[in-house]
Amino acid sequence: MTKINAERLLSDLRRFAQFGAYRTGVHRPTYSKADMEGRRWLAQQYEATGLRAHIDGVGNVFGIPRSDRRSLLIGSHAESQNHAGWLDGALGVIYGLEIARSFAETPECADLPIAPVAWADEESHYIPLLGSRSFIGDIDDAEIDRAKNVDHGLSLRQALSDAGLGGVSRSMIDPERHVGYLEAHIEQGDSLEASGNRIGVVTSIVGIWQYTIVFHGIQNHAGTTRMAIRKDAGVAASMLAIAIADRFPYIAGSRTVWTTGRITLEPGAPNIIPGKAEMLFQFRDSEVPTLERLDAVLRELVDETAAKTGCRAEIKRIGTGKPWQMDTVFQQAIKNAAAHHAPGAYVSMPSGASHDAQVLGRKLRAAMLFVPSIGGISHHWTENTDDADIVLGCQILADAAHAIFRSQDG
Amino acid sequence: MTKINAERLLSDLRRFAQFGAYRTGVHRPTYSKADMEGRRWLAQQYEATGLRAHIDGVGNVFGIPRSDRRSLLIGSHAESQNHAGWLDGALGVIYGLEIARSFAETPECADLPIAPVAWADEESHYIPLLGSRSFIGDIDDAEIDRAKNVDHGLSLRQALSDAGLGGVSRSMIDPERHVGYLEAHIEQGDSLEASGNRIGVVTSIVGIWQYTIVFHGIQNHAGTTRMAIRKDAGVAASMLAIAIADRFPYIAGSRTVWTTGRITLEPGAPNIIPGKAEMLFQFRDSEVPTLERLDAVLRELVDETAAKTGCRAEIKRIGTGKPWQMDTVFQQAIKNAAAHHAPGAYVSMPSGASHDAQVLGRKLRAAMLFVPSIGGISHHWTENTDDADIVLGCQILADAAHAIFRSQDG
Repeated sequence: MTKINAERLLSDLRRFAQFGAYRTGVHRPTYSKADMEGRRWLAQQYEATGLRAHIDGVGNVFGIPRSDRRSLLIGSHAESQNHAGWLDGALGVIYGLEIARSFAETPECADLPIAPVAWADEESHYIPLLGSRSFIGDIDDAEIDRAKNVDHGLSLRQALSDAGLGGVSRSMIDPERHVGYLEAHIEQGDSLEASGNRIGVVTSIVGIWQYTIVFHGIQNHAGTTRMAIRKDAGVAASMLAIAIADRFPYIAGSRTVWTTGRITLEPGAPNIIPGKAEMLFQFRDSEVPTLERLDAVLRELVDETAAKTGCRAEIKRIGTGKPWQMDTVFQQAIKNAAAHHAPGAYVSMPSGASHDAQVLGRKLRAAMLFVPSIGGISHHWTENTDDADIVLGCQILADAAHAIFRSQDG
Repeated sequence: MTKINAERLLSDLRRFAQFGAYRTGVHRPTYSKADMEGRRWLAQQYEATGLRAHIDGVGNVFGIPRSDRRSLLIGSHAESQNHAGWLDGALGVIYGLEIARSFAETPECADLPIAPVAWADEESHYIPLLGSRSFIGDIDDAEIDRAKNVDHGLSLRQALSDAGLGGVSRSMIDPERHVGYLEAHIEQGDSLEASGNRIGVVTSIVGIWQYTIVFHGIQNHAGTTRMAIRKDAGVAASMLAIAIADRFPYIAGSRTVWTTGRITLEPGAPNIIPGKAEMLFQFRDSEVPTLERLDAVLRELVDETAAKTGCRAEIKRIGTGKPWQMDTVFQQAIKNAAAHHAPGAYVSMPSGASHDAQVLGRKLRAAMLFVPSIGGISHHWTENTDDADIVLGCQILADAAHAIFRSQDG
């Protein structure tokens, strides 16, 4: 077995957090100066490990083994959310680097090719899961042509050109060349911490179904329009939000989550009855039948609300992410390693967040490991994980990788 | 009795609507080029009527009678809401001009001084009811120093300077010099039209109590945070809106209205549980005990919502307009004239909207007359009133003015 170098792992994680350092976290949006410096630093580390490094046309950084044997991809995304934490994405990226290095240093593992990878824009500054989707051929040039930065509107083409990636082609997967894909990530929730576990073995990644729901009422003067004749779109939106809160618990799965992230009333003035209300709503579950049941009930509730308020309603499904089951053989390899290093302190669980593993999983065997998030906090600069858990997660992933290669031989 | 000139009245209203013409309405924000041209045109008309015209330091246009006798102020505001109707404000302003003219032309009325007036910024581009509040001494220089345009942020001081009013002093009321104040206005609701009436005699102007209500929850990841541990500020805001809709009808007066004009969820992203929700809420009634009852119940509902959702709530009353009763003697004068010209087609009613008359009423006897709004529409360029109703309203207000002077003599 290989033994990872805990000090080097933590030191590299801290070094990587200097790219775009912000308080105790990082601000490293995709293709920003800090992000590209970080990616070039990763490429240097891959080279120093004896790999051939390549940054492709959307910024994915690959560490390519020089062996002809099928390699195991290990990584995550390198960029961060705005003003966010130091581990989200970076943890899995540096695990990939450390595991490649420790395999190279361990005689019995030196011929097992680990291919570390750092995907681009999982965090949706331009396109959600851009890098991994590009790699599996799930994105076309037209989508890239249309994309703009969600914060400042710069086109993706311009951003790529500014990052020096203008003329570079996008690397495409050859599934025959890979054993599979492993990804580690912070949990981003409090389930592990709350249950006293140190490792989560991901069973599935939830599907996210997302909607815009618009109510059209009648905009009018808030003083001179009698209550009896109002058609207040804002009241309709609030009524729907509460109907969802009342009804969904009875039809949801045990891990289903749902969120109204935004409500916009127009015109939004204190003395005008809102004529239009727009809600951004989503739910997540790992089972398609549950997602379909929630969809049907949501549409019923929208219709009921429209009927009660006299407002006209429109509902549009703007996202229909499929849930993705993780590979059971890979899950078992992670569980076996966890049972060895953290007996009684690991648990199987679905992932409520999206990850590049759900994309890679469409072409390769793929699995994920979670480490605990202190206080369940993520997407915030205070995000953190205990050093001991960081080291433990990497060792378990390394052992799982070794076991996966061994099972290939058998 | 005096007889107003219907053709001249309608012609002047149409002429005045050319200042800032927008589709069939007007766009004449306070101190805009169109607004100041309109005010200077009014001053010319006042002079042509034999009055001394003066535009004061906040843009109020006064037509000052040359008589020593106490005058009757008649007017409204000259500016419009953005891209709004041609009659809101303008109707009452041109009524003042027409009544001053017809009095001057009628031998038995020629010595009864009508003082037409056009107030500035009733419509709150900078400060609600700015002109009339300045005139009664209810505003100080510090408030003017602080004020900015709600749309483009230009300071009020700069706007006044740009309008050529920089060095001009603000005119202050001498209550001894006035008999009182009359104002005509479009109803801006559908009560007159729905009841088949052509004239409304305003009994009172409602008080508007306005609030910001903030819920503080816990911002978190919309995928990884279990429903059971969420403190979703957006759900709290919706819950409060519906609690108000359920509870207020039982404690409100027959004419009470309430409105949530804006709900803002932060950060407002689809995949983040809102950590903060802010609501802009107001209610209106003509009775202080009713306003106080609504205030108390609102605070109860905010506390209940905070307790149910685990969110922390803040409620801040940001406006406490007093309801104002119109003068009963003046109301009777309008009713008598309405009974003569529109028998069976007039009604006493409160005003749900604010008007300069509520400000003048603090220093002088004051009353208001409403004409119907077609379809109840206002603050929109399609706002309109039947020509026959426009003419009828002016004749009734002229007769009421005459009767008020006669009652002074008696």
